[in-house]
Amino acid sequence: MRVAVIGASGYVGLELLRILSRHPGFEVCAVTSEQRAGVAVGDAYPSLRGIVNLDFEANDPAAIAGRVELAFCALPHAASAATVAALRRAGVRVLDTSADFRLRDVETYRAWYGAHPAPELIETAVYGLPELYREQLASTDLVAVPGCFPTSALLPLVPFLRAGLVSTDGIIVDSKTGVSGAGRALDEQFLFAELDENCFPYKVGNQHRHVPELEQEASLAAGVDVSITFTPHLLPITRGILTTLYLRPNQPISAEDAQRVLEKAYAQERFVRVLPVGQVPKLASVRGSNFCDVAAFSDLRTNNLIVLAAIDNLVKGASGGAVQSANVMCGFAEETALLEAPMVP
Amino acid sequence: MRVAVIGASGYVGLELLRILSRHPGFEVCAVTSEQRAGVAVGDAYPSLRGIVNLDFEANDPAAIAGRVELAFCALPHAASAATVAALRRAGVRVLDTSADFRLRDVETYRAWYGAHPAPELIETAVYGLPELYREQLASTDLVAVPGCFPTSALLPLVPFLRAGLVSTDGIIVDSKTGVSGAGRALDEQFLFAELDENCFPYKVGNQHRHVPELEQEASLAAGVDVSITFTPHLLPITRGILTTLYLRPNQPISAEDAQRVLEKAYAQERFVRVLPVGQVPKLASVRGSNFCDVAAFSDLRTNNLIVLAAIDNLVKGASGGAVQSANVMCGFAEETALLEAPMVP
Amino acid sequence: MRVAVIGASGYVGLELLRILSRHPGFEVCAVTSEQRAGVAVGDAYPSLRGIVNLDFEANDPAAIAGRVELAFCALPHAASAATVAALRRAGVRVLDTSADFRLRDVETYRAWYGAHPAPELIETAVYGLPELYREQLASTDLVAVPGCFPTSALLPLVPFLRAGLVSTDGIIVDSKTGVSGAGRALDEQFLFAELDENCFPYKVGNQHRHVPELEQEASLAAGVDVSITFTPHLLPITRGILTTLYLRPNQPISAEDAQRVLEKAYAQERFVRVLPVGQVPKLASVRGSNFCDVAAFSDLRTNNLIVLAAIDNLVKGASGGAVQSANVMCGFAEETALLEAPMVP
Amino acid sequence: MRVAVIGASGYVGLELLRILSRHPGFEVCAVTSEQRAGVAVGDAYPSLRGIVNLDFEANDPAAIAGRVELAFCALPHAASAATVAALRRAGVRVLDTSADFRLRDVETYRAWYGAHPAPELIETAVYGLPELYREQLASTDLVAVPGCFPTSALLPLVPFLRAGLVSTDGIIVDSKTGVSGAGRALDEQFLFAELDENCFPYKVGNQHRHVPELEQEASLAAGVDVSITFTPHLLPITRGILTTLYLRPNQPISAEDAQRVLEKAYAQERFVRVLPVGQVPKLASVRGSNFCDVAAFSDLRTNNLIVLAAIDNLVKGASGGAVQSANVMCGFAEETALLEAPMVP
Repeated sequence: MRVAVIGASGYVGLELLRILSRHPGFEVCAVTSEQRAGVAVGDAYPSLRGIVNLDFEANDPAAIAGRVELAFCALPHAASAATVAALRRAGVRVLDTSADFRLRDVETYRAWYGAHPAPELIETAVYGLPELYREQLASTDLVAVPGCFPTSALLPLVPFLRAGLVSTDGIIVDSKTGVSGAGRALDEQFLFAELDENCFPYKVGNQHRHVPELEQEASLAAGVDVSITFTPHLLPITRGILTTLYLRPNQPISAEDAQRVLEKAYAQERFVRVLPVGQVPKLASVRGSNFCDVAAFSDLRTNNLIVLAAIDNLVKGASGGAVQSANVMCGFAEETALLEAPMVP
Repeated sequence: MRVAVIGASGYVGLELLRILSRHPGFEVCAVTSEQRAGVAVGDAYPSLRGIVNLDFEANDPAAIAGRVELAFCALPHAASAATVAALRRAGVRVLDTSADFRLRDVETYRAWYGAHPAPELIETAVYGLPELYREQLASTDLVAVPGCFPTSALLPLVPFLRAGLVSTDGIIVDSKTGVSGAGRALDEQFLFAELDENCFPYKVGNQHRHVPELEQEASLAAGVDVSITFTPHLLPITRGILTTLYLRPNQPISAEDAQRVLEKAYAQERFVRVLPVGQVPKLASVRGSNFCDVAAFSDLRTNNLIVLAAIDNLVKGASGGAVQSANVMCGFAEETALLEAPMVP
Repeated sequence: MRVAVIGASGYVGLELLRILSRHPGFEVCAVTSEQRAGVAVGDAYPSLRGIVNLDFEANDPAAIAGRVELAFCALPHAASAATVAALRRAGVRVLDTSADFRLRDVETYRAWYGAHPAPELIETAVYGLPELYREQLASTDLVAVPGCFPTSALLPLVPFLRAGLVSTDGIIVDSKTGVSGAGRALDEQFLFAELDENCFPYKVGNQHRHVPELEQEASLAAGVDVSITFTPHLLPITRGILTTLYLRPNQPISAEDAQRVLEKAYAQERFVRVLPVGQVPKLASVRGSNFCDVAAFSDLRTNNLIVLAAIDNLVKGASGGAVQSANVMCGFAEETALLEAPMVP
Repeated sequence: MRVAVIGASGYVGLELLRILSRHPGFEVCAVTSEQRAGVAVGDAYPSLRGIVNLDFEANDPAAIAGRVELAFCALPHAASAATVAALRRAGVRVLDTSADFRLRDVETYRAWYGAHPAPELIETAVYGLPELYREQLASTDLVAVPGCFPTSALLPLVPFLRAGLVSTDGIIVDSKTGVSGAGRALDEQFLFAELDENCFPYKVGNQHRHVPELEQEASLAAGVDVSITFTPHLLPITRGILTTLYLRPNQPISAEDAQRVLEKAYAQERFVRVLPVGQVPKLASVRGSNFCDVAAFSDLRTNNLIVLAAIDNLVKGASGGAVQSANVMCGFAEETALLEAPMVP
């Protein structure tokens, strides 16, 4: 199946190329980059020399639509929707890694991102977390690939919400992220000399745009409104999100029972690995892979339940998750091109 | 004033030598190390070549007692108490960086560390946080230097507890620490290839020995029992602890009002820097220094108060804090040798 | 084809498992580890949970020989030869990642490593650099997988020696390596807190065991004795070797002409990427991959030719190189399981 | 003595503030920054909160000249000379950390940097390496602070050149540097995600502007023209330069004898530490300090002499070196404010 990667020179785009280069069913036929149009992929990004033999082209949805059946769109928020709309009009199925189609409520979108450029498409989009929406993904033409933080928080959280085991009020999500989530943004705080040996929180007090996304999906899982306090922290690493959830159980629950909730929820899932009781998720153990490692711990004395998850933000949290959904959409085995072992050490 | 550093070859001991080398009032006359006895400090630790011109000697408290008035004891937990007791018997004033004299209740000590080797001294020890116990420190002969995590959590927490503004039940302390807190332990997980690009929690579910210390001091500040859920996370950095506290205010409180609580508490403190509203503490901003940067944020929607602190675990969290207490004990200006600017970048 | 990985719990062994898990032609049927015998691979090394479904077993060459046709032996130097000999006696073809069969001269081996445990096999071994010995590899039963430093130095160097373009006297090889080359050795200098933000040379003055290997292969390429000064430097990174060669051309040679020498030598090679003139090899561009990126620069003013190479020491420099040779030995396409794109960022 | 720091918001400027904050003889009265004019130093750079209580002002040499006797000028190359000239005209003594007054030959300056903005001052400048020019520094009014790479290469090299022990032709200088030498430049290659786990050479083939400076000072030391091949490599660290020199001795020389050359040259120097025979300089051992650690190794077999040096590029390689020269100029003890122990770990 012929596919395009729109916005292929950002980190998410390059990671899509890395993953798709080993996919037997998708053939990448077009890669776009405004900045790099006309340049060979391997000249601009030497890691892909000898792997991807294409030139970047400018983003022209109409022209690309004629050449591919499916497109991965890795453009920035707000910029993405117009391209997605053009591709959809031309009949191309789309996986969009931006935030443009994640929020179901156009007013919420407006509050966090501004006026929505293609509100008519929102209803047609499916939230691209196969562990939650596998059936809907199989038949959709538009996938909203989830944000990296929501992926890392929802996978460990949803089973407890669905089971009604925890308070839905003021759930605490404390995330630690590598810097690649910020892309290649030329911002002083992302310089090596500034971030090295450093760590700090940002957008503290629920100012991060992933909050409405988190609350939307958590509420759908719980069947009632869920409120979340989310604090992301930047780490001096490139890849990975470690999320620590603090939940208040409605009834005291042991670590073993909490683990069992996770095990039951994910027994059939290939990419969510429930660790043995007592083992903690580590970023290194998922590096470069599509896995999400999860585990639960209980502090019965204070009645706090601590649930943990680790993902690679560029794989399970973006490009790998997108390919996983694409596999579901297109009828490939869901794990195709996604079972590469994590890179350790 | 002639001083000794007992256990001088560990990270805390070396950091004491680094700080004391610029102290005009303390002269280091004895440095001990079982492993390095007989070796010149500068030969064993080349960074100190030309700075510290002493040989390590074996730890013989009786012999050392005759040569110094004050000792910094940086031995491991449990091993420390015997040396401290010997030094005290010989009339030497002691600052102990181990956990041996931090817990006031000998039964709590037993539960976490085993039988106490010198229980008779517990009552005489003062908890070495000058911001809380300045007056008592001025006249004590034995200081229990606080743990690094408690230092990072108590400074931002205590003002809210003293003011009775927050729930004392199930306070959440989510800490992120550099690896130097583990010392030079030869454990696989501390190898560069294992920790680099990695991050993970440990001792989840209140298994960390700093929990009883935290709860003891928090309870004393609150005047009632405080319970805490503490989750430390290991970062791929060498120095620094960033602590994120999640507090539930008894009455909704704005970020500005919460900041004011901190500002009022620390207006006269030289080493606690309350940041301007909206600015977050960063590990880099305190690196190598005795500062503790604090700030408060409010999530009124979920009624969570997020209070943050950053310290250098080896300075304010150990050796610098010890020297600060020693300055108070010995009548030096409290900031002597401790106003070195953080190393940025 | 059924294969074993002997010594599978070290970094080279685990990397073999990572690579072989995507190989359609090799089925790993036995993995050994003395330390971990009886433990499931995924329990001991969580990154491989869900990827490798085997238990470690103790190393018993006789028992293993009955179950496999081919073995990758990743034991330490000197320990390896006995296992290799036993496997060979039982008819198993072997790729040995230790140094035991790299040196053709048993006296040289003795000088650097001690008495050779299986000297009779030395003659039968082929040096596992397919770019140099492809034909011999196709029919051998024993491969000596090259050292990581020699791989990084020989690929850029040999074309110039073969063409007789540079002095063979006192060639300077300045290498910078990640720490994974040292394995999981519990040595203080490899602790995160010691290596982080650090860099230093070691075994300066030709004390490194890779010197005789380098000189042996360089001399074979040149047809005359080549002498080399080799200085390795340890970097605060996990993977990768960057080698900077300083050569003295017999006749002045431009950068363009020097590049052409490399291009001609490697036109048909899949894994040696000669960069465009002026582009430098970077460790990040080969991370996790089997590529060796090379480039040449000329300083005509001082008549020094600078030739550069970057590899991932665990892939092209060890496990990937081993699989590449195994592919040649066993008649698989040489790039099978080895074209995974480098992990960037 | 009242001093100004011109260009105080770059890394070199901030490091000057860090060092001068502990200097008993210099009082910083003016700090300039075009970008930050009007902002308090501690608001812009939180590490200096509570340490430097000044506001940044715009750079107005005439206005500043009336308020200070001495100025440290940390402006970029070419931009610096005009300010230096204005300050000098007003009678202010200047230490300039740019390259503008390092090269004695105005034509060489033109070839590497463009037309010189104040050629008349070149003759009055002294090269600010007290180990080489102490006497001249004592009476000059203008100091050209050396480049970081030249500092790291000249200190280990000059003793061998002065003694006429090594070939002056094609000396190889292979340097490894932290990224802070590039300042806070917003260049993609300096982003954390790009440099982390990466290493690469740049300006290969003597394209780096420090080459003419290196050759000028090496030639002056040797008394004949010296030619140098210089290859800098970028490391994933913030501070430090490790330089590996490859010299060809005129007569074979043992490591011990080579060390003795260094020991003799630096016996009276406080900041050049000649390590014991066999010990290698490490970046960590000089971190944050004004020390330069040096050592020599010999490869008698290939007749290569390997001489090594480690410095902190922001201290001995820039701001610390500047303060050291200022101490000499102003009659303070040379080590004033510069004996702070390296920060280890």
